[in-house]
Amino acid sequence: MQIHGYAAFQAKECLRPFSYTVSDLKPFEVIIQVSHCGICRTDLHMIENAWNRSTYPLVPGHEIVGVVVQKGQLSRLAVGERVAVGWVYSSCLECSECLQENTNICQYKTSIYNRGRYGGFADFVVADSRFCFQLPKQMESVHAAPLLCAGATVFAPFINYQIQANQSVAVIGIGGLGHLALQFSRSFGCETSAISSTEEKQREAKEFGASSFYTYENPPSAMQFHYILCTVDVELDWNLVLSWLKPNGVLCLVSRPKTFHFDPAMIVSTQRSISGSNNANRFLVQEMLLFAGRFQIRPKVEEMPLSEVNTALERLKNNQARYRIVLKI
Amino acid sequence: MQIHGYAAFQAKECLRPFSYTVSDLKPFEVIIQVSHCGICRTDLHMIENAWNRSTYPLVPGHEIVGVVVQKGQLSRLAVGERVAVGWVYSSCLECSECLQENTNICQYKTSIYNRGRYGGFADFVVADSRFCFQLPKQMESVHAAPLLCAGATVFAPFINYQIQANQSVAVIGIGGLGHLALQFSRSFGCETSAISSTEEKQREAKEFGASSFYTYENPPSAMQFHYILCTVDVELDWNLVLSWLKPNGVLCLVSRPKTFHFDPAMIVSTQRSISGSNNANRFLVQEMLLFAGRFQIRPKVEEMPLSEVNTALERLKNNQARYRIVLKI
Repeated sequence: MQIHGYAAFQAKECLRPFSYTVSDLKPFEVIIQVSHCGICRTDLHMIENAWNRSTYPLVPGHEIVGVVVQKGQLSRLAVGERVAVGWVYSSCLECSECLQENTNICQYKTSIYNRGRYGGFADFVVADSRFCFQLPKQMESVHAAPLLCAGATVFAPFINYQIQANQSVAVIGIGGLGHLALQFSRSFGCETSAISSTEEKQREAKEFGASSFYTYENPPSAMQFHYILCTVDVELDWNLVLSWLKPNGVLCLVSRPKTFHFDPAMIVSTQRSISGSNNANRFLVQEMLLFAGRFQIRPKVEEMPLSEVNTALERLKNNQARYRIVLKI
Repeated sequence: MQIHGYAAFQAKECLRPFSYTVSDLKPFEVIIQVSHCGICRTDLHMIENAWNRSTYPLVPGHEIVGVVVQKGQLSRLAVGERVAVGWVYSSCLECSECLQENTNICQYKTSIYNRGRYGGFADFVVADSRFCFQLPKQMESVHAAPLLCAGATVFAPFINYQIQANQSVAVIGIGGLGHLALQFSRSFGCETSAISSTEEKQREAKEFGASSFYTYENPPSAMQFHYILCTVDVELDWNLVLSWLKPNGVLCLVSRPKTFHFDPAMIVSTQRSISGSNNANRFLVQEMLLFAGRFQIRPKVEEMPLSEVNTALERLKNNQARYRIVLKI
């Protein structure tokens, strides 16, 4: 089967049409006809080889929704079924982390594209059906796509840290991840604050669920939040950010700033923590989709055709996306 | 009542004899005749005004064991009862943290010495009986004293993080805190490792409970520990230290290095955390004393008379104490 998509042929180049052939499917593999694919900042980093691990030609795209059109002999999915796939193509399912269903932090996991695999900026994609997810019937595919990465990433901390409705949560960065984090936080019943670099996002942040809105010029006061989810990868004044946490509060990084410098006095006497969270395991991705369906959590999307992928990437790069771009294939 | 002790009269000076008078006791106060008082690095920092909050004359000492000799009208302690007191003179018992029994991180807590109070390097000390602890009968006072600060500090993370016997714990720094941390870790049944700057401590570290011993020249391998308790306040290669943690592992600082610089990539993809722990609340101090009694956890002490307090402080400063100095009053 011939698959047609868009690929970067080397770092930082524009994407160009690319096709590849799939012959035999492995037992758990399926071919999905892609209907929608979200664009994530990780795609930009991978196109630019920011982490020195990109292989070319590189077909990005890891927020994929589509319909199963072909299946390997062990797949439990049905041809014709609508499914979704995220960043993880598959994990080893044998290591200590996988035995704890920490499939998202398995050392041996492979991604849906790179190193011989090709992603969702294409008419079809090959996936491992054990890492495909079911979508609530009433959820539109265009709204489902961004949940696979952006949604899962900001949902997981609520479950992993057992965040409850009596607690206060601040979200730093009101973009693709942050605008979903606000909706999840409100749905968990938390007192929800948005912290943005710009006043411009105030109105929308409040629509997404923030009851308070802050900027770096007009910051929160000290000891205000139980949890801060930091969705930006820029360098912040980390001592200041930590000061906003209550005692025993947690600053969770879901994205990767280049460096992090802080004064241990900010965490020892108050018992604060700094932690990292990396997408979500399979159970949490599925829970997130059901939760988003039940609470009608929807990304705010800009829908663009695959043929305009380069324009779309440029918009994302310039922080113009409001709030997630989804390619219609 | 006249109380005689040793005080620093200004920063970095030798301690000299000092006496002060106690007239009326507040309702919850007691006067304790001090029999033993441990010396902690915090005492050194306070004498030297390292945190810019010391007031002079300063009578140090916050690992205190003695006998109640006088009591205010609301104290539930009995005259003649042996009790122990640590760093916290009292907390507000009204703020949100106190309502959760986080008395150790109450913003309004006061310490057993400084700002008008005087510590345990003296024949008597005034304490709040609500912050006095009972000692197991068979525990010797000289062994109990260091548990009040050093012991409580390294015990609390085991309970707060729910560390269990199937997990691996590394202790960085085999000194006053570290040699107790190894004993607690072994008693919780954990696979226990010691990490020291010097090979010299290998034999004793193994006696305290370490099954493995590492130095910075001969370091652990990557992804080895569920928890690392860092008891030193020197600057380490924090990215290297973080690399020793398994995914989802926790680096807990129980002491305060001056700065902490790390690459967020070390915690995001593997979901590691960096946290701080500050002594222990009242419940945990009491649990720790019972636990130490049951498992016969004993600090290794050098006993010295109060009159040699300056020699004792000098030994601690030069890292010569093996492993905790206790003043006999």
